[in-house]
Amino acid sequence: MSQTRLLRMGMIGGGQGAFIGAVHRTAACLDHGVVFAAGCLSSTPERAMESGRLLGLPASRTYPTWQAMLEGESKLPAGERIDFVSIVTPNHVHHAPALAFTNAGFHVVCDKPLVHTSAQAEELRRAVAAKGTVFAVTYNYSGYPMVKHARHLVHTSTLGEVRKVVVEYNQGWLASRLEASGQKQADWRTDPARSGMGGAIGDIGSHAEQLASYITGLELAEICADLTTFVPGRQLDDDAAVLLRFRGGAKGVLMASQVEIGRENDLRIRVHGSKGTLAWRQEEPNHLVVIPEGGPEQVLRRGNAGLCDAAKAGTRLPPGHPEAFLEAFANVYNNACHAMRAGVGGIEAATRFDFPGVIDGARGVRFIERVVESARSDRKWTAV
Amino acid sequence: MSQTRLLRMGMIGGGQGAFIGAVHRTAACLDHGVVFAAGCLSSTPERAMESGRLLGLPASRTYPTWQAMLEGESKLPAGERIDFVSIVTPNHVHHAPALAFTNAGFHVVCDKPLVHTSAQAEELRRAVAAKGTVFAVTYNYSGYPMVKHARHLVHTSTLGEVRKVVVEYNQGWLASRLEASGQKQADWRTDPARSGMGGAIGDIGSHAEQLASYITGLELAEICADLTTFVPGRQLDDDAAVLLRFRGGAKGVLMASQVEIGRENDLRIRVHGSKGTLAWRQEEPNHLVVIPEGGPEQVLRRGNAGLCDAAKAGTRLPPGHPEAFLEAFANVYNNACHAMRAGVGGIEAATRFDFPGVIDGARGVRFIERVVESARSDRKWTAV
Amino acid sequence: MSQTRLLRMGMIGGGQGAFIGAVHRTAACLDHGVVFAAGCLSSTPERAMESGRLLGLPASRTYPTWQAMLEGESKLPAGERIDFVSIVTPNHVHHAPALAFTNAGFHVVCDKPLVHTSAQAEELRRAVAAKGTVFAVTYNYSGYPMVKHARHLVHTSTLGEVRKVVVEYNQGWLASRLEASGQKQADWRTDPARSGMGGAIGDIGSHAEQLASYITGLELAEICADLTTFVPGRQLDDDAAVLLRFRGGAKGVLMASQVEIGRENDLRIRVHGSKGTLAWRQEEPNHLVVIPEGGPEQVLRRGNAGLCDAAKAGTRLPPGHPEAFLEAFANVYNNACHAMRAGVGGIEAATRFDFPGVIDGARGVRFIERVVESARSDRKWTAV
Amino acid sequence: MSQTRLLRMGMIGGGQGAFIGAVHRTAACLDHGVVFAAGCLSSTPERAMESGRLLGLPASRTYPTWQAMLEGESKLPAGERIDFVSIVTPNHVHHAPALAFTNAGFHVVCDKPLVHTSAQAEELRRAVAAKGTVFAVTYNYSGYPMVKHARHLVHTSTLGEVRKVVVEYNQGWLASRLEASGQKQADWRTDPARSGMGGAIGDIGSHAEQLASYITGLELAEICADLTTFVPGRQLDDDAAVLLRFRGGAKGVLMASQVEIGRENDLRIRVHGSKGTLAWRQEEPNHLVVIPEGGPEQVLRRGNAGLCDAAKAGTRLPPGHPEAFLEAFANVYNNACHAMRAGVGGIEAATRFDFPGVIDGARGVRFIERVVESARSDRKWTAV
Repeated sequence: MSQTRLLRMGMIGGGQGAFIGAVHRTAACLDHGVVFAAGCLSSTPERAMESGRLLGLPASRTYPTWQAMLEGESKLPAGERIDFVSIVTPNHVHHAPALAFTNAGFHVVCDKPLVHTSAQAEELRRAVAAKGTVFAVTYNYSGYPMVKHARHLVHTSTLGEVRKVVVEYNQGWLASRLEASGQKQADWRTDPARSGMGGAIGDIGSHAEQLASYITGLELAEICADLTTFVPGRQLDDDAAVLLRFRGGAKGVLMASQVEIGRENDLRIRVHGSKGTLAWRQEEPNHLVVIPEGGPEQVLRRGNAGLCDAAKAGTRLPPGHPEAFLEAFANVYNNACHAMRAGVGGIEAATRFDFPGVIDGARGVRFIERVVESARSDRKWTAV
Repeated sequence: MSQTRLLRMGMIGGGQGAFIGAVHRTAACLDHGVVFAAGCLSSTPERAMESGRLLGLPASRTYPTWQAMLEGESKLPAGERIDFVSIVTPNHVHHAPALAFTNAGFHVVCDKPLVHTSAQAEELRRAVAAKGTVFAVTYNYSGYPMVKHARHLVHTSTLGEVRKVVVEYNQGWLASRLEASGQKQADWRTDPARSGMGGAIGDIGSHAEQLASYITGLELAEICADLTTFVPGRQLDDDAAVLLRFRGGAKGVLMASQVEIGRENDLRIRVHGSKGTLAWRQEEPNHLVVIPEGGPEQVLRRGNAGLCDAAKAGTRLPPGHPEAFLEAFANVYNNACHAMRAGVGGIEAATRFDFPGVIDGARGVRFIERVVESARSDRKWTAV
Repeated sequence: MSQTRLLRMGMIGGGQGAFIGAVHRTAACLDHGVVFAAGCLSSTPERAMESGRLLGLPASRTYPTWQAMLEGESKLPAGERIDFVSIVTPNHVHHAPALAFTNAGFHVVCDKPLVHTSAQAEELRRAVAAKGTVFAVTYNYSGYPMVKHARHLVHTSTLGEVRKVVVEYNQGWLASRLEASGQKQADWRTDPARSGMGGAIGDIGSHAEQLASYITGLELAEICADLTTFVPGRQLDDDAAVLLRFRGGAKGVLMASQVEIGRENDLRIRVHGSKGTLAWRQEEPNHLVVIPEGGPEQVLRRGNAGLCDAAKAGTRLPPGHPEAFLEAFANVYNNACHAMRAGVGGIEAATRFDFPGVIDGARGVRFIERVVESARSDRKWTAV
Repeated sequence: MSQTRLLRMGMIGGGQGAFIGAVHRTAACLDHGVVFAAGCLSSTPERAMESGRLLGLPASRTYPTWQAMLEGESKLPAGERIDFVSIVTPNHVHHAPALAFTNAGFHVVCDKPLVHTSAQAEELRRAVAAKGTVFAVTYNYSGYPMVKHARHLVHTSTLGEVRKVVVEYNQGWLASRLEASGQKQADWRTDPARSGMGGAIGDIGSHAEQLASYITGLELAEICADLTTFVPGRQLDDDAAVLLRFRGGAKGVLMASQVEIGRENDLRIRVHGSKGTLAWRQEEPNHLVVIPEGGPEQVLRRGNAGLCDAAKAGTRLPPGHPEAFLEAFANVYNNACHAMRAGVGGIEAATRFDFPGVIDGARGVRFIERVVESARSDRKWTAV
């Protein structure tokens, strides 16, 4: 809150009934640095207009199509038009608006997985590099303070050399054929035309990949994947198991499932190094377990002295006053907004301001592609 | 977010460096139904004005004293002036502005413990009854959805007859004499002139009392308290243990401490009935343990089917996407705001719209008074 | 196992259907240093003889009464007769055989609570002092290695000065009137003639008292108790809450309940000192949580380097290979047997060989008496 | 304890300094149905004789070699000679004595992994079938009551059709090159000549395989393995990750590591079916988490009503009185001893009396062979 320049957010998608739209709006505005100013909130023009009205947008800033929004906002004077657009549509409607708004010089915050193909991702990467705009991808789980401290521990060699990474993202909500009931979230996520080539591996496996990459900084060399569709009639995978080999010799296992009954949003990671171990779970995000060689196990808690600067910067409340999903999501927005306010964009901004950028988004797309390729292959290892 | 009428919030206290002010502003505005419109953010006029500027308030709505704010806002037309005022000052500055704003017809949200004496509380109660305004006390922990479901389980007799309640609120931040360092939070909380007659029992014990009352609906009949000041040189208690006897025969124990090293904000409650047990912890607020007679233990999680309406109404995110402190705090604000929008005030509004009201605030003050009286007494039981 | 001299155990009580008899036999013999050699296994002579036969005792060492056993064993040559007798009867049959065997020069291991009155306890104490025999009381929970390390941390001032002790022992098996069904364990425990003046406070509260005393070494100065009988028709308390004041200024709370549905054998303790906190739970006994001032929380696990000698001496298995109830029980037997083999008895042996002795048993009896007295009193504090 | 016929145990290996020998002796004798009667406790004759003396064996039953023991015991009359022999030597000394004692008509209890090659295992299988003796393999973790109940839940289709099994066995004790220090346990386990072709995958991975097989009854169809040696200079794998495909369509992941710092003996399994999920951990073995479709999560605890007969039969203590490693180990012995007493041997005895038998041992050896083969292969899937 404060003296910081208020930024104006536009939104594509996220209207009535879209859970993730409300998350983005609340997260972006959480710390009072962003105002929701314009939107094209549905791919159906009538719903788009109605959603804008319900959310209190002025009619003049409520658009029936994203193209209309691009045109309309571009005509507004710099002091009025949106600073950035958040794209929170199903995956197949990421690429076109992301590219168009970037090319028009707007900053972009886009949901993940970024796009359907590496070719699309590369196109975006080049546009961002060319325009020098800020481009963030909402890999929101890397916004948690204790994840940032985990990264700090690895990067400062507190764990020694990383040997092994086990990352899992398990859910159970698709254990039966929910899409057959017309449930909106299940419907598009299980449809290759809208979701892309990955089911569970795309929707949540990509978060797991990014979390491992964010914390360890390791690059995948090759993978060996088994994708399964457990629920009869489903077109995409609902379960994934992937053996990982990183450059430099570290190994790992990545699991993602949407058919583990009783698992809600169980993203967890552990990293084992030559000098210690760390472990973190998204569902209890306020602490991080660290075990140095020789022990004992330590439980580090958010808000306490001794945590890294990035963790502190992402913390609002004192220890014991739990923060959670929205705050972590807001941290991604805040860091991207810091870059916007600082006037720093392009490829480097993401690393410098600590938010997931177009490079991370592109890496995620490539990961999904390679996992699907590996799953179809008889060869053991597929290069990444 | 939405069609709901935006309400304008004013704030007394909560300026630079005041942790709780930011919490109130973020919580009130979390769901986009409230705007921060005016403030007197410090008892020092210069700091008040500077804080308003830093928080982006217009100069015309930034006031040097709460009296000036009352006068200024009262003069504004109904469509512009604040709908309610949040009082987030140290305890000794609750009573006067709460009474004055209520008497002037403004709705009031006031921090806890409400005031220093039962006489003051009674004065407020009468004012609220007379004016028919909304008056909320931010016993924020009763805003958690799983607390609301716990209450539901008791009220629907799922646990049978309540036999025993054990509620604890333990912290460790005052285990050494932090106030000697000038730390602001510690400074006023350990000063009887500003904090009132209770130390730990007032600051956090009152939350524990309210949580037990909210969940069980039981009324205290008599208590037996032992208050201790463990840290040499401190004027108020930093540890409290209280035996409880409720009307109707239930028993209980309440503990509150600020000297348990390593405890951060460890509010927890368990209720044992003739047909089952429930247990909840604030630091892991997204689940509630319930054990029916004959077992097995069940772990109920926020966001799932089967929870009560009040829990659902206070839920924003799906299961596994953790919500936490801010969302619970926002739930108190939202429910009070629902009452304001509905034009329902006075004593009954709190129960009807499910937020802690002036009656709860008064009961808390009386509890602190009686605990202190009991602690000084040689009689075993002190009536409440 | 090994070179250590095998000791011969006799047993009073513990025949067919008596859970605790099997526990004592298994625990005593766990490490192969004791053989079960003689017994009077029931107060009903026929059952006593039948139980001996079923357990494989020779007929010549199976006795119809404990008096017969005392006579019979006394006549055997030193190399054949029992070294010690274990008394595992209901409480009202502790005093007479304990006194008689002690006076006859046998070592004694007796269940808790030791006897019904302090006068009886004092009689035993004098007998033990006079005869110089070993006398152990099976406060088995102090046999856990991590409890021994907790004691070590307090005694070496790792926690600083102890300020506060919270000890609880909660169960749920008597939440309804089980004794009305004739269930044997419930039957005698709820009968004052056999159990003594304490119900929950005697059966399990005495364990809690001993655990706190063992770990902290603090002496109670005065107490304030509330005893409740929640289940209609029951004669003894089934729930206890006690405020504690120790000599030297430390405070505490002790709770014991047998009506908390879903609690199985939930003995737990936490100790808060001026420099740190420790916490331990019987149901997950292989670890001990320690939080030093400034943090972070540490989880110490049985079997690892860095634990105290007493913890190591009571450990059989490596880390991660959990030990539990029987091993802790065996540790009490083993330490008492070490004293017997070393020929060291009398009052001092318990402290020197680290097992609960007659002094501990007597303190427990006095504790129960004072709690009952306090519960009946209108005075707040009752001296201990 | 009781009327059951006492059985006489002989032991090969397990002398001074051998942790596992003491475990076997204590487990076998825990319930008083077995006596330790003879032994050849070391491969070094002098140590063998000295160990026997220290453990209190009569000189006449202490043998310098297992061949001498076979000869000596065979000459004794049926009422005196050992009933069974426990083989607790390093892996390379399993096959010869197991075969010889079986062929001589003795029952055998052998440590795991059973032997080095499938050819050896087949030889044993044929011998057991031919002689009709009892042959048990101490896959001790399947002795836990809650594991038995997990098996019951799967076998009674409570989880629906099994889709996915994730089993892990992680330790950290070999995270540095402990074998270089001469530590005995590390020394032979990292030596292919004594341990066999598998390092972590043989020592602990084989337990994980057996646990999954025991609970689910599923047969592996094909696997894809990655074995790693993280510690420089080590000859065998110290980390394994294996993708599993079962006959019938279920999938799974098996992980085993001895280089995860801070992990002690962290064997855990979860099974996901079309109607529910179960999860169990060896380090907290007294409960089992079960989540039926639609929830909520349930925590089942050992000793309570409603558990299956096999769980009840393996339970000694009431709920809340934790049982652990030794009791589970004893359950394997007890069930094998029941078969011996019943005079039922051969291949079928294991299934009928619920203990791991020669078929399980052979399957484990084949699993290790196939994992090693897969790890060396470029093909993705290796048939099992």
